[in-house]
Amino acid sequence: MEGVDYLANERNKAEFDVDEMKIVWAGSRHSFDVSDRISKLVANDLGFSKEGRTMLPRKELFKNTLKKAAYAWKRIIDLRLSEEEATQLRRWVDEPAFTDLHWGMFIPAIKGQGTDKQQKKWLPLAHKMQIIGCYAQTELGHGSNVQGLETTATFDPQTDEFVIHSPTLTSSKWWPGGLGKVSTHAVVYARLITDGKDYGINGFIVQLRCLEDHKPLPGITVGDIGMKFGNGAYNTMDNGVLRFDHVRIPRDQMLMRVSQVTKEGKYVQSDIPRQLLYGTMVYVRQTIVADASIAMSRAVCIATRYSAVRRQFGSQNGGKETQVIDYKTQQNRLFPLLASAYAFRFVGEWLKWLYTDVTQRLQANDFSTLPEAHACTAGLKSLTTTATADGIEECRKLCGGHGYLCSSGLPELFAVYVPACTYEGDNVVLQLQVARFLMKTVSQLGSGKKPVGTIAYMGRIEHLMQCHSDVKQAKDWLKPSAILEAFEARAARMSVACAQNLIKFDNPEEGFAELAADLVEAAVAHCQLIVVSKFIEKLQQNIPGKGIKQQLEVLCGIYSLFLLHKHHGDFLGTGYITSKQASLANEQLRALYSQLRPNAISLVDAFNYTDHYLDSILGRYDGNVYPKLYEAAWKDPLNESDVADGFHDYIRPIIKQQMRTARL
Amino acid sequence: MEGVDYLANERNKAEFDVDEMKIVWAGSRHSFDVSDRISKLVANDLGFSKEGRTMLPRKELFKNTLKKAAYAWKRIIDLRLSEEEATQLRRWVDEPAFTDLHWGMFIPAIKGQGTDKQQKKWLPLAHKMQIIGCYAQTELGHGSNVQGLETTATFDPQTDEFVIHSPTLTSSKWWPGGLGKVSTHAVVYARLITDGKDYGINGFIVQLRCLEDHKPLPGITVGDIGMKFGNGAYNTMDNGVLRFDHVRIPRDQMLMRVSQVTKEGKYVQSDIPRQLLYGTMVYVRQTIVADASIAMSRAVCIATRYSAVRRQFGSQNGGKETQVIDYKTQQNRLFPLLASAYAFRFVGEWLKWLYTDVTQRLQANDFSTLPEAHACTAGLKSLTTTATADGIEECRKLCGGHGYLCSSGLPELFAVYVPACTYEGDNVVLQLQVARFLMKTVSQLGSGKKPVGTIAYMGRIEHLMQCHSDVKQAKDWLKPSAILEAFEARAARMSVACAQNLIKFDNPEEGFAELAADLVEAAVAHCQLIVVSKFIEKLQQNIPGKGIKQQLEVLCGIYSLFLLHKHHGDFLGTGYITSKQASLANEQLRALYSQLRPNAISLVDAFNYTDHYLDSILGRYDGNVYPKLYEAAWKDPLNESDVADGFHDYIRPIIKQQMRTARL
Repeated sequence: MEGVDYLANERNKAEFDVDEMKIVWAGSRHSFDVSDRISKLVANDLGFSKEGRTMLPRKELFKNTLKKAAYAWKRIIDLRLSEEEATQLRRWVDEPAFTDLHWGMFIPAIKGQGTDKQQKKWLPLAHKMQIIGCYAQTELGHGSNVQGLETTATFDPQTDEFVIHSPTLTSSKWWPGGLGKVSTHAVVYARLITDGKDYGINGFIVQLRCLEDHKPLPGITVGDIGMKFGNGAYNTMDNGVLRFDHVRIPRDQMLMRVSQVTKEGKYVQSDIPRQLLYGTMVYVRQTIVADASIAMSRAVCIATRYSAVRRQFGSQNGGKETQVIDYKTQQNRLFPLLASAYAFRFVGEWLKWLYTDVTQRLQANDFSTLPEAHACTAGLKSLTTTATADGIEECRKLCGGHGYLCSSGLPELFAVYVPACTYEGDNVVLQLQVARFLMKTVSQLGSGKKPVGTIAYMGRIEHLMQCHSDVKQAKDWLKPSAILEAFEARAARMSVACAQNLIKFDNPEEGFAELAADLVEAAVAHCQLIVVSKFIEKLQQNIPGKGIKQQLEVLCGIYSLFLLHKHHGDFLGTGYITSKQASLANEQLRALYSQLRPNAISLVDAFNYTDHYLDSILGRYDGNVYPKLYEAAWKDPLNESDVADGFHDYIRPIIKQQMRTARL
Repeated sequence: MEGVDYLANERNKAEFDVDEMKIVWAGSRHSFDVSDRISKLVANDLGFSKEGRTMLPRKELFKNTLKKAAYAWKRIIDLRLSEEEATQLRRWVDEPAFTDLHWGMFIPAIKGQGTDKQQKKWLPLAHKMQIIGCYAQTELGHGSNVQGLETTATFDPQTDEFVIHSPTLTSSKWWPGGLGKVSTHAVVYARLITDGKDYGINGFIVQLRCLEDHKPLPGITVGDIGMKFGNGAYNTMDNGVLRFDHVRIPRDQMLMRVSQVTKEGKYVQSDIPRQLLYGTMVYVRQTIVADASIAMSRAVCIATRYSAVRRQFGSQNGGKETQVIDYKTQQNRLFPLLASAYAFRFVGEWLKWLYTDVTQRLQANDFSTLPEAHACTAGLKSLTTTATADGIEECRKLCGGHGYLCSSGLPELFAVYVPACTYEGDNVVLQLQVARFLMKTVSQLGSGKKPVGTIAYMGRIEHLMQCHSDVKQAKDWLKPSAILEAFEARAARMSVACAQNLIKFDNPEEGFAELAADLVEAAVAHCQLIVVSKFIEKLQQNIPGKGIKQQLEVLCGIYSLFLLHKHHGDFLGTGYITSKQASLANEQLRALYSQLRPNAISLVDAFNYTDHYLDSILGRYDGNVYPKLYEAAWKDPLNESDVADGFHDYIRPIIKQQMRTARL
């Protein structure tokens, strides 16, 4: 970041303390310190260079990732990094690798589903990486429907072993990251069969490869499933295919915390409640929401900086053209995404608290809040990942033609991010789960059961069904109470409308299937309310620092009013606002864009991303875009020679009219 | 397409004559015949195989494309294909190449802007491909703002030459396809300077490379701009960068149809109206709309077939699970896209007629319909390309996890398609042009000037501002008149509302800038009306064939009612429909989904795409998805060996705890 800062002018305009905002974004001074230190350590280490990543053929790309992953592990050991620091390091290295699954899925699965004895045996091996593991759940034929998995684990009491087998082609394990070429072990999910009876899906630790020569063990067929979307992106990962031909494992490699099979082949449930497993799901989804805010902020950072650099039209008397960030159409697409990045950050922070709360309750055998927590995390995972995937592509388009170049960083970011809409629950399937919870809540409203947590507003259903917005002028829309009631009334009324339509069906399940699209919309309305309300709650906290609170208020207003405008049909259709009030919201939204404008660059600076992490010429901190784009072009392999490889065989014969004799 | 047809059941359900629909889709029996014959010719020729395209590194990928392009040219010559057939062949080869720009931009530019003498000199060379050309307009610093281009062409009367020069870094030509490594010539757009005066942007034919050894000529720096979004995709194209260092060309290489420079350096306008150039723009945009329907239909074909193959959940008593196409949430996302494909096809057909009409009028010096035609094509280009880009990604998501694999064909289709949102006019900039036309139309409403063509409805503004929907039950929404009036009233009222808000500003341009986001929405409403009305007009034609008209009516209903639902805020907010009527529309939409369902597979079969063209395992005609996915996986280079390249250096040291001594 040496040399001229072409965005200095923009930075000077900021009306708030950027350093303070960095801490708000990071969550705490400690988080900021660790993240700042480790991100710079990674950025300054050539071992983590991203150079050429989007140009490498698959095999070289993958080998390079293996090298980086090993180097990262070496640095973690050499620098004696803490667990927190090691996690940060992997995050800032910013390249999907088998280690993500080893640390993020394999170890947690053993921790969550293994007995104490199993944990004692396997976790030290995993922590030292003497074994490398992955999480083999999805199959060629089954993803969302976990209960439909076909792999079998049949108990053989003669040898005290399970026989793991892939009975059909569609039972092949398919997709698990780290499975294809690296993992020595996997937690494999399979139908437990003992004594001729099918007890459904359970987890088993299975060794896949020899620890000496890394060859697949007998009975195991394993490989990579092939190229995925994008350049670089997830092609650094060995998502794998795996088939078992009657592979035997000892009985004690079934993960037995929740249910066991005895030596005699008897299936026994432990007294540990199955609900405990949901705690893990809440945890994983909370991290996905946090990742959404990171991906969104990263795209927004690139698009915002480039929008300040790029000028087009509007030159008068030979002066400079207008910065594209000054166009309202650009602001109307970009600023709501900037606001979303902050909104998702705060709701993610709150989800961390929720996870702690749920965990404590589970330990005290209190399962009362679990359905609400489950619905809430499912819905927020869906909402934030969908918005982020769309938002990244919108940011790419906001960068015009140059956003289509890999050197903009946005194509790879999009390609690497979009699977989040599908994994850990397809986003539409998840909203249907939320809808089911909403319908249940509505149906119990008369029963005296009080809705809690994020669904508490349903307790005020009578008021919410009748009230009307009292907004009279544009600035009334700045009142948090006005916003909150609008989103509550809309969500409540959409849920109630669905419930009323459901009653018309004789068979409730048929009704649910038929009205599924409407139910998803009601669920989305509920989830948007959660994000808005958590943003408003954040603002009610004591937030020190010059101008910080004011900026967050502007962002919260933009996030809410943009949603209100986008979905104004819902607010109008449910009769909460009038057409006039909708126009006032729009007017206020435009005013907020103007307030945000001078702070835009500093608001993305507050994410504290290094140029290494952004890996985007358009998003460079110093704004020195054009010379660097020009330089980068010459690095393409096609430019190694002035005359293209293939000229003599394929171009010259055309120009020289020698096609009839050309050998092609 | 031999062997078992796993979708035979689906095909048997069809309630219409698929062969007849193929002709409707193609536009005529002749178009169908040519397209069917050539697409099969390409599919059966191994020279056009797409095998491995998404896995090749850039240099090999590009060389491969050169080979295919030469081979295609050889086939065109050997088979003595007509121009129509040659164009079809290039289309079905389905790989972006320099030939696209040579035939699609270089030759048309000379035809449109060259004098008869120039055409006589250059066109035969180009038609025989003795020279290969591209279209060098955009620069590093300027895309949308063509008038801001910086390259200069300064006339030197001493030598009767132009001096082409790149005075700044940002004046480097940037993006032109075919420029980087192949083109021997380019039409270069530059500021014409003569006698010390700047006459703005004009086109010049400039030779870039030696016709013998293909080396760049003196003063020319030319190369490829580097990797772009996606695997394969546009990386087969040598989008280029080009700089001139005082390159001299003879005066007669300025394209002089519309304006000339004399030997003495005098700038003269010919009596040929500049408006003629707009004809070309109408032509180019019409082809873009046609391409949108092709790309959309291709994605929809893949997603529809796979949705019929894929089953998930809903198994009862060990029976088969439910086909995902039977879920309303899937239908609600997929069927409107299927309907859009047909809608865009028909509006594209109509645009072809419009182009002919405009051309005839221009030849008769009638420019009266030009503003309307210009606004209409600009708006439709924007509307259809945005919807198609989003639609392809939606189709990819509708295929779940497997849609993320390159072998699904969807990632490459997305990556190769999205630039259409940016080139030939950024989609937002274009809608602002439409909005300007709409505001002008509204402001002239009292003046007696009668709006014509697609804006004719504004002539009934008084009625449209007051009327209300008379829909009383769901099926009333099936009446074309009900739909048409709804879309007209919405579009008219949104335009009028914008116009009324604009008046409040002292400076109209400031108002236009401030309200830009609202203006874009009004423009979109207008364009959606055009698509809906052209679909309805199509239905009023005599359409023979068993069940064809009924299917098209269902598709038209789905397209319209889905839009009405998506934008119901507009319809409610402008007061044309009530909340109850919006619900009825939704109810009718669901009913139409059920009517479409049994015909879904046959409706995508009607596109008549070969498996070669689709290049998608998920979209295979025979539905034999899983075995082929499994087979394809093993072709990845990573599977060449059981043990990964890199194991000894990067994995073994980890497992064996030898990190401290590992050399990384």
